[in-house]
Amino acid sequence: MDKAFQDFYADNFSHCYGCGKQNPDGHRLKSYWDGEDTVARHTPNPIYSGGVPNHVYGGLIASLLDCHGAASAAAFTYRALNCKMGASEEPIRYVTASLKIDFRRPTPMGTELTVHGKLRSIEGRKVWVDLTLCADGEVCVTGEMLAIRFKE
Amino acid sequence: MDKAFQDFYADNFSHCYGCGKQNPDGHRLKSYWDGEDTVARHTPNPIYSGGVPNHVYGGLIASLLDCHGAASAAAFTYRALNCKMGASEEPIRYVTASLKIDFRRPTPMGTELTVHGKLRSIEGRKVWVDLTLCADGEVCVTGEMLAIRFKE
Repeated sequence: MDKAFQDFYADNFSHCYGCGKQNPDGHRLKSYWDGEDTVARHTPNPIYSGGVPNHVYGGLIASLLDCHGAASAAAFTYRALNCKMGASEEPIRYVTASLKIDFRRPTPMGTELTVHGKLRSIEGRKVWVDLTLCADGEVCVTGEMLAIRFKE
Repeated sequence: MDKAFQDFYADNFSHCYGCGKQNPDGHRLKSYWDGEDTVARHTPNPIYSGGVPNHVYGGLIASLLDCHGAASAAAFTYRALNCKMGASEEPIRYVTASLKIDFRRPTPMGTELTVHGKLRSIEGRKVWVDLTLCADGEVCVTGEMLAIRFKE
């Protein structure tokens, strides 16, 4: 299987509860290419319930969009530079400046969630990413992220 | 101490990982009045690290804003109705329709975070809430939420 985008993060910057390979407690989300777009798949542990049983709580949904969006911003930049991920002189890494989340329908628990990322634009250090979270083939959540490149 | 807004949620709708009193694994955030506004305080467990050590990960920040905002929307509505929380014929409860989060500076780990909610407007079933997250007296994150009243 291909390495995930997060597998290229430096070990000392891999502590994120959402997607850090060095965080044994967290979700360890993994993001990959999906044609021109990006994808991450995650089946939540039932402890991450919303107020209503059998639905996923907003914080986990935000985490999936946030972690996948920031990883996708890095991947889109590597692609724009025609550079293999991990092959740049310095690692290319993004942090979230702004994230807007629209909860369109309740996200069910007990099924795999799929998060897609689509590049809207790259402008200097800024990358805009459009995000969609689906469960059982239905769009539950959409989001848009502004990510900013940072120096480790 | 006064009861928190979340203490009035019905037991069968109190399973949220962010703020549910019935969720033993979660953050169990508690929201209160703070004059005309609302406040919640939370010191994150260090497992909720961001990618960079000693900072809080985005998903927890989103959860704090989301749970406090939705609880605040209910509190603002009770106040607008001149009704004591929990004294309405049916419980008044909100879900998040949309949440925009602006990460203005990294949120440090190891200190108490304070989330404030301010009512922008109530229009029928919709409530707009402005949110601010501070650490050590500095604004780290701002947010705006559209919450929608729902029937349990």
